[in-house]
Amino acid sequence: MFESAELGHKIDKKRYAEEVPALRAALLEAQYQLKDAPNFAVVILINGVDGAGKGETVNLLHEWMDPRYLITHAFGTPSDEERERPEMWRFWRALPPKGRIGILFGNWYTDPILDRAAGKDGRARFEARLADIDRFEEMLAQEGVLLLKFWFHLSKRFQKKRLQTLSSDPDTCWRVTPTDWAHFAQYDRFRKVSELALERTSTGYAPWTIVEGADPEYRSLLVGRALLDAVSHRLELAGRGFHSRQTAAPLPPRVDQINSLSQLVLDQPMTEKAYERALERWQGTLNLLSRHEKFAGRGVVIVFEGMDAAGKGGTIRRVTAALDARQYHVVPIAAPTEEERALPYLWRFWRHVPRRGRFVLFDRSWYGRVLVERVEGYCQAADWMRAYAEINHFEEQLVRAGLVVVKFWLSVSADEQLRRFQEREQTSFKHFKITPDDWRNRERWPAYAEAVCDMIDRTSTTHAPWVLVEADNKYHARIKVLRTLSQMIERALK
Amino acid sequence: MFESAELGHKIDKKRYAEEVPALRAALLEAQYQLKDAPNFAVVILINGVDGAGKGETVNLLHEWMDPRYLITHAFGTPSDEERERPEMWRFWRALPPKGRIGILFGNWYTDPILDRAAGKDGRARFEARLADIDRFEEMLAQEGVLLLKFWFHLSKRFQKKRLQTLSSDPDTCWRVTPTDWAHFAQYDRFRKVSELALERTSTGYAPWTIVEGADPEYRSLLVGRALLDAVSHRLELAGRGFHSRQTAAPLPPRVDQINSLSQLVLDQPMTEKAYERALERWQGTLNLLSRHEKFAGRGVVIVFEGMDAAGKGGTIRRVTAALDARQYHVVPIAAPTEEERALPYLWRFWRHVPRRGRFVLFDRSWYGRVLVERVEGYCQAADWMRAYAEINHFEEQLVRAGLVVVKFWLSVSADEQLRRFQEREQTSFKHFKITPDDWRNRERWPAYAEAVCDMIDRTSTTHAPWVLVEADNKYHARIKVLRTLSQMIERALK
Repeated sequence: MFESAELGHKIDKKRYAEEVPALRAALLEAQYQLKDAPNFAVVILINGVDGAGKGETVNLLHEWMDPRYLITHAFGTPSDEERERPEMWRFWRALPPKGRIGILFGNWYTDPILDRAAGKDGRARFEARLADIDRFEEMLAQEGVLLLKFWFHLSKRFQKKRLQTLSSDPDTCWRVTPTDWAHFAQYDRFRKVSELALERTSTGYAPWTIVEGADPEYRSLLVGRALLDAVSHRLELAGRGFHSRQTAAPLPPRVDQINSLSQLVLDQPMTEKAYERALERWQGTLNLLSRHEKFAGRGVVIVFEGMDAAGKGGTIRRVTAALDARQYHVVPIAAPTEEERALPYLWRFWRHVPRRGRFVLFDRSWYGRVLVERVEGYCQAADWMRAYAEINHFEEQLVRAGLVVVKFWLSVSADEQLRRFQEREQTSFKHFKITPDDWRNRERWPAYAEAVCDMIDRTSTTHAPWVLVEADNKYHARIKVLRTLSQMIERALK
Repeated sequence: MFESAELGHKIDKKRYAEEVPALRAALLEAQYQLKDAPNFAVVILINGVDGAGKGETVNLLHEWMDPRYLITHAFGTPSDEERERPEMWRFWRALPPKGRIGILFGNWYTDPILDRAAGKDGRARFEARLADIDRFEEMLAQEGVLLLKFWFHLSKRFQKKRLQTLSSDPDTCWRVTPTDWAHFAQYDRFRKVSELALERTSTGYAPWTIVEGADPEYRSLLVGRALLDAVSHRLELAGRGFHSRQTAAPLPPRVDQINSLSQLVLDQPMTEKAYERALERWQGTLNLLSRHEKFAGRGVVIVFEGMDAAGKGGTIRRVTAALDARQYHVVPIAAPTEEERALPYLWRFWRHVPRRGRFVLFDRSWYGRVLVERVEGYCQAADWMRAYAEINHFEEQLVRAGLVVVKFWLSVSADEQLRRFQEREQTSFKHFKITPDDWRNRERWPAYAEAVCDMIDRTSTTHAPWVLVEADNKYHARIKVLRTLSQMIERALK
């Protein structure tokens, strides 16, 4: 892959001086167009060998463009808040909103490549990490993010010369650290490892651009032009409206009435007395688990989904009653805020991923995409179709980071829902709980039921299975939630 | 202050059981009213002696109310991201938005009181920290935050008994840590120190409520009722519209034409050639300073203010060109986002306070409050009047945390502004820079000039003085900014 980046590309200074002013003006104009009609975000990844001008190029872009709308994040050692969360959390944190350009320097490629080159990771683990990256980048692309990946390359001979030159000049020797020399000693290995990384992750939606780093004029012009072309092209597309395209076949039709919901017996018996005894027992168990010494190194993410009036709020209160208020946050999910709308869909959930030793309870969740957004047509079919895989990937990352992910579908029958709606309308202090929206959603019951069945089929995974909860009897539902939750945490702590 | 909290208050269980259901229903209803018409946020501070039921009360509130709209933050050892910023940063981070109730447990009172009780802080430092708190809470109150402060108290005799009882029961002994006993040994000292803290910070806008913690029924009912009364009262006021009241006299009239701006000679000579030489020199100096080993323990916050077309953007680019892009962020300030509007005014600037070793450049800033918001009437006179003191306090906290705060006013004459506006209209690639707003603002020049002079008079402090920059000649302006900035950083690193 590096062949054409070892040919000694060179631009003479005169031509460079002639071309740069127009390039800068065009880059600035593109940047302002992007800012004034924020249709998409631009993410620029800067990677490659040491000494190939990565830092200089980032600085140059800041000089050429308007630094007010260009955000660079350099990732070094993670902070403790970052270490206690999934690996990708700190990159999600740094994603630029629509209308902005973000440069990520030392990004999601850095550790996988270095860990493999240093022999810390085996080949299989390396491939798995690359596959993860690929899925992440595909999601970004689908969300409309324009992703530009630059790999700065130097031939071995040239890199050595460059490091020597930098070291010998007192003005530049600070740029060369002992780490740089250590990396150089591993040049061949690093080259082989990065070549594989580039092969695996040069995709149709986010190809790598390999930049020969030897000649400053050449590499600057190449990066500047590539950036300008990409942004201009996308601005033009955005003018015509950008839509994700659905290429997969539609979901299969239902040919009978049997599905995961229709098989449930929703009205499970439980008396008030039995409920109170069981409540005490399972809240006690959950409380003990939350104070277990091993729990400090784990964490729990709980999702509550269900039709309106299925009893989500009441169940959540029974769970939190067993916990120390200092240990949990409840996140009610409603319409996204302005800041959230300017970022990829899952961003607003990533921002609530807990540190170790904590519980986060989502009252509705990322599943909104494949439920309300699908049914009400708030997003394209292509968007909710891809959401299944994206969600599975998200949850898998949570689980790998040591979090227990528990998802409850509170299943209430249409008759019981009606009864609860009417009760709410008649009880003064429950009045606020019922809105015209609830009645409207109720009319779409069959469409919602279909979406729920698809959701369960497609996102009940080995690492994060759905727990279906028969919810016509609230007592039964609450106890089943508490019991299942306790059992799943207990298993995880073993 | 603790007298009436050592009388052995008690509520019998029967009366408690009778009163709680109505209290819970009323609290829930108040909570939903608050959520549905988010006019203000509620902040509840929980402090006091160990073993007096602080944690239990927090848990009880979560049980009584809807945990979805109640957010508890417990502050322990700061994370490294928190340690590298001013002390108050982590509390700003945790403030609830309008419509929500936030419980802060282990808050801004904890360290000052513990540090004084342990003898780490002298009396003067303790008083200074309390004064800081007082200013912060006054700001919260003025921003419409409903602040409730509960101090849980136990008599010495009772506290001893309680700790012993908890320790002897295997089910509760985990609640008592060695730290609790160590604190108990210092009971008298702690009592004296906290009494002083409570005296100093029991203000008209945020009085302390002292809660005798001995009897669970008594303390729960007291806290629940106090919370309900406060929220209901404020909801009623909010229905009638809440306005800050201006009690200070208006600013004095101008009786002559002499002011800090009129004394400047705006068109300072500098040739292009001299500029280029000086640019290289001062960018070099600034770059060296940014790589100085001591700089890693410091940081810089730079504010750029000026009339439209004063040259802020161009000057910022000359500063950033001297820096490594990994080391700085530029924050352009426009209208606040939805999330920002739901929090106290300064929140959106606190969120950009840098970690150590970084630069943050604000293109317009918190001074918007006393400039555009004052002149255009976007806020009440009472709000911009108090902003001077709040801003000074904010900047002082930045400086105390080791940050260098540099504020530039780029002063351009009305004639030069007109020339630049016309040039912008005639130059194709500068066209986007001129909007009808610019022309409208220009008509209000005298009002803006008055606001600027007041701003300079009232916020040029010893720790963060304004630097007035004659800006009719861009060359001069840029060099003055670079030179002053370098000199101020140099002085700070000495």
